[in-house]
Amino acid sequence: MKPDLATDRDESTVLVDLGDRSYPIHISTGATGRIAAALEKTLGQTSHALLIHDAAVEPWAEAVAAQIRSDTLRVDIASVPSGEPSKSIAQYQELLDWMLERGADRRSVVIAVGGGVIGDLAGFVAASFARGIRFVQVPTTLLAMVDSSVGGKTGINLSGAKNMVGAFWQPELVWIDTLAMKTLPDRSYLSGLAEVIKYGVIDDAAFFDDLESNAAALVERDPEVLRYAIRQSCLSKARVVGEDERETSGRRAILNYGHTFAHAIEATAGYGTLLHGEAVSIGMQMAASLAIQLDLCDPGVLERQTQLLQACRLPITFPAADAAAMLPVMMRDKKVAHGKLRFILPTKIGHVELVGDVDPAEVETAIRAHR
Amino acid sequence: MKPDLATDRDESTVLVDLGDRSYPIHISTGATGRIAAALEKTLGQTSHALLIHDAAVEPWAEAVAAQIRSDTLRVDIASVPSGEPSKSIAQYQELLDWMLERGADRRSVVIAVGGGVIGDLAGFVAASFARGIRFVQVPTTLLAMVDSSVGGKTGINLSGAKNMVGAFWQPELVWIDTLAMKTLPDRSYLSGLAEVIKYGVIDDAAFFDDLESNAAALVERDPEVLRYAIRQSCLSKARVVGEDERETSGRRAILNYGHTFAHAIEATAGYGTLLHGEAVSIGMQMAASLAIQLDLCDPGVLERQTQLLQACRLPITFPAADAAAMLPVMMRDKKVAHGKLRFILPTKIGHVELVGDVDPAEVETAIRAHR
Ligand SMILES: NC(=O)c1ccc[n+]([C@@H]2O[C@H](COP(=O)([O-])OP(=O)(O)OC[C@H]3O[C@@H](n4cnc5c(N)ncnc54)[C@H](O)[C@@H]3O)[C@@H](O)[C@H]2O)c1
Ligand SMILES: NC(=O)c1ccc[n+]([C@@H]2O[C@H](COP(=O)([O-])OP(=O)(O)OC[C@H]3O[C@@H](n4cnc5c(N)ncnc54)[C@H](O)[C@@H]3O)[C@@H](O)[C@H]2O)c1
Ligand SMILES: [Zn+2]
Ligand SMILES: [Zn+2]
Repeated sequence: MKPDLATDRDESTVLVDLGDRSYPIHISTGATGRIAAALEKTLGQTSHALLIHDAAVEPWAEAVAAQIRSDTLRVDIASVPSGEPSKSIAQYQELLDWMLERGADRRSVVIAVGGGVIGDLAGFVAASFARGIRFVQVPTTLLAMVDSSVGGKTGINLSGAKNMVGAFWQPELVWIDTLAMKTLPDRSYLSGLAEVIKYGVIDDAAFFDDLESNAAALVERDPEVLRYAIRQSCLSKARVVGEDERETSGRRAILNYGHTFAHAIEATAGYGTLLHGEAVSIGMQMAASLAIQLDLCDPGVLERQTQLLQACRLPITFPAADAAAMLPVMMRDKKVAHGKLRFILPTKIGHVELVGDVDPAEVETAIRAHR
Repeated sequence: MKPDLATDRDESTVLVDLGDRSYPIHISTGATGRIAAALEKTLGQTSHALLIHDAAVEPWAEAVAAQIRSDTLRVDIASVPSGEPSKSIAQYQELLDWMLERGADRRSVVIAVGGGVIGDLAGFVAASFARGIRFVQVPTTLLAMVDSSVGGKTGINLSGAKNMVGAFWQPELVWIDTLAMKTLPDRSYLSGLAEVIKYGVIDDAAFFDDLESNAAALVERDPEVLRYAIRQSCLSKARVVGEDERETSGRRAILNYGHTFAHAIEATAGYGTLLHGEAVSIGMQMAASLAIQLDLCDPGVLERQTQLLQACRLPITFPAADAAAMLPVMMRDKKVAHGKLRFILPTKIGHVELVGDVDPAEVETAIRAHR
């Protein structure tokens, strides 16, 4: 039975409130026909768009381009190979050269159509071409819809260092259409659900309840439940980003719940073995265990989180977890201050806190609990 | 006879007022011994600095490094080949890789020691490493002291397009020491004076008067007159930048006085034939003539400007000027809106205005007047 969801309209908007850098996130199903009008409303009269898309979503990108192209708006299209290696300086330079060749200038607009890879890459291109031009995100993975396309972090990798180069550059508009999920492979989709569940744990107990009641529909990609889940996720992320746009106050760190463990899992398992969301799922389990060990929350938090992750077909253990290898990685993590381990840990469903100076022995125990 | 200059202390500070991005420009002669204290005052406790310098100023860079290096502050040094070709993506990537290898993180500080090339390059490195880290400018050319190190424009070139990629990224401190002028070749020094004179024409009649009275001392690099000239230039630039940080209101365009002509001269003469300041000198002459033709100012403006430029040994004509070749370049200039030529033109010494829709025939006449 469907619950009474907070929004069951087929179209809604979340505002990211950042003063003169505020922007709307438009969430809908099957609204490509409305994108031209939305763009014009947000950007005003624009004569040149540079659409950069993931090679895997070419038809989707072409559909968007066909809608917005007009006598007054020229649309150039660049296809970028799928996958993390495209977040490179070489690919960055190639796109910049292409933009120059296509006659881009300060009034041009970059439109990213793809997952987090394309959003991060095209976002940094937009942030730095002519010292910054306007940018629109059209995310096509669940992770990009609920996480990477919101908040203004853009960037590329240096060899061996993820997201080492980039800019904070907010889009003018984020255009989310759940129809894009139709072609997304199951593993990638489910992986995105880990971040959705994360928002419930860190920020929104009622949302967590709703996810519990609707897990089956969510896994089946029911458009209504999906729009609701995306909307609540974006609301949470927008709220946190609004309080700490450039990651200076520390507030934004709560988004990293489960991530210190996840990064260590990803690094020791070899990047690519697990999808990011899968690692986050396991990482949240370890974090919840750590919180219980430290008497910050009761075991019910872990139980409910386990149930929901499993209902969403996410992994909750990492049999190859090697605490001895993971700990040094965690010590190098950005959230480590002066060699002391810090974690974002839940006190209850819907609330987390930053906990400093955690005993490495406790961390090891938490890792072992989920092997 | 020395005039009563506005500042004859051997040390002064100009504040660039940009809200929470405000910063001081420290102007002095022989103050390297004080840089460590100034850095600590501005940056607080800092443990890692990455000093990036022009190969031509290695001794100067080593002296700065020796002053700031301490038990608590590690200083890594990178030397960059002199010249405009270093403002490339290849050099940018090399520096980023070097920073990663040196263990730079979000708390590290980039210090640029050199002219505009190093400031623009290292500034963009600082703007984008870890999505932006702190940055200090130690300019060693006159152009960098009065222009490029102030205002937050950073960037590199794409093949065939100057400053096409970059960021607005304000430094935390600009440290100007006129002793660095000791080794600067004459032509580069004099070229910088063109921008100094520009500030007099566009913004500050009293400053222009003082420059007229002190031209000989200025050419001889008298430290007191030089500090005064740098200070007034920085005050003008800081004021304009404070009103239009990201070049959105149009106010910042007044800094381009003479530059539409200069860019066309540089492009048609082949980059490198003339130094930028030399082209600006000739460009200001053409702009002043255009203003007279359009009845915006009286001929005295051109006469006084001519006198002062000549006293500063700057070129005032460009015998190879080819109006037919220059006009198309000017039409492509950023200040052209909808195919109409726009210029920053003086109405009197100390004031300029943006003049739109100028007849190309008038522009040709102005160019011919200075062949
Ligand atoms: N900027 C941020 O705040 C932020 C936050 C989290 C993650 N990220 C970044 O996001 C990236 C991961 O994002 P991702 O998970 O979206 O990965 P991704 O962009 O690589 O997309 C995953 C895969 O799905 C394919 N794909 C995308 N849309 C599709 C669709 N509709 N149908 C079929 N296939 C499709 C892609 O080709 C790719 O193979 C990482 O680089 C990460 O660093 C950034
Ligand atoms: N960011 C801005 O707002 C801005 C403004 C104007 C110009 N610029 C940029 O600045 C650059 C030009 O700057 P520049 O004129 O300083 O050129 P530059 O940095 O190339 O320096 C000129 C020459 O002087 C040498 N040099 C520098 N300091 C010296 C010293 N103290 N003694 C001896 N030799 C020294 C250099 O090796 C170089 O050969 C251009 O790339 C231009 O685009 C930027
Ligand atoms: Zn994540
Ligand atoms: Zn100039």
